Amino acid sequence: MARIPVPTDLPGIIGLFAARPDTAGPLRELAETLLRRDDGLGRDERELLATAVSARNDCGFCRDSHAAVAAAHLGDDDALADAARQGRLADVAPPRLAALTRLAEAVADGGRIAEDLFTAARDAGAGDDQLHDTVLIAAAFAMFNRYVDGLAADPADQDAYAAMGRQLATHGYRAAP
Amino acid sequence: MARIPVPTDLPGIIGLFAARPDTAGPLRELAETLLRRDDGLGRDERELLATAVSARNDCGFCRDSHAAVAAAHLGDDDALADAARQGRLADVAPPRLAALTRLAEAVADGGRIAEDLFTAARDAGAGDDQLHDTVLIAAAFAMFNRYVDGLAADPADQDAYAAMGRQLATHGYRAAP
Repeated sequence: MARIPVPTDLPGIIGLFAARPDTAGPLRELAETLLRRDDGLGRDERELLATAVSARNDCGFCRDSHAAVAAAHLGDDDALADAARQGRLADVAPPRLAALTRLAEAVADGGRIAEDLFTAARDAGAGDDQLHDTVLIAAAFAMFNRYVDGLAADPADQDAYAAMGRQLATHGYRAAP
Repeated sequence: MARIPVPTDLPGIIGLFAARPDTAGPLRELAETLLRRDDGLGRDERELLATAVSARNDCGFCRDSHAAVAAAHLGDDDALADAARQGRLADVAPPRLAALTRLAEAVADGGRIAEDLFTAARDAGAGDDQLHDTVLIAAAFAMFNRYVDGLAADPADQDAYAAMGRQLATHGYRAAP
């Protein structure tokens, strides 16, 4: 049970958004801006990075919900979403996404980031906007993960994530859930 | 020098905001919402918690800029802002703020949070909204700190923080800088 009252049956950040619409507004808008842009990084790549960071931070709700959004974007080929859920995205992704995953995981861990990780991502084809968005996605999920787990928000039923993923992949983060 | 191009002479997150107005929008709005509310926690307390978390995460730009905003809110009595800069806020703050500082530091460190920290803060007079805002301020600065240091944004000149603090304390986070 969450550390503050949230509406019954609303798991994870969905319950926190319902409890506090004032902060939900900019948080939803940030997710929409970071995860739904189509230039530079694909929506599937953005969701995979969000999943990998959430797995790194051991936030089950964020990990499983964004893995489901990634899977919805990827269609039937959801091996990458599974790998991201399991913390293995850097091992199996194409070179550019693998390098960005390593960068995102370092940002999740905090502190100064070795320049080598930026060089490797640039060598694999990433430009300024992809590097920026990767760092900010990792930083944003350092926040979302701590918000959900810091307040001990409930996980969703395991069979609810797929529908949540399709909903978010189609309608985005501005609307409920 | 930052890992991506930013306008010359704009330090820290100010340069990143100028480089990427698309993400600056919701990030500025989040700071405004979290740090400028007057109910529950005072603006001075919000800035002190932001400073304490940034000190914990060793992000010099965020630590020194928010310490300056806290000092501007506090007027001449800036001993608490100094303590927050130095990672000693929990040692010197009044009991409720001290308990909330301990909670914020635990959230900054990540993972599940001991229920004792919530109980201690409630015993010291904190309610649901103060607990929520403390957790989300700590989570948000896990993000802001990683954004600034992950992209190696330049610090400001040490003598620029006081003016920045007065500007932000007066005009808030929606406008430049």
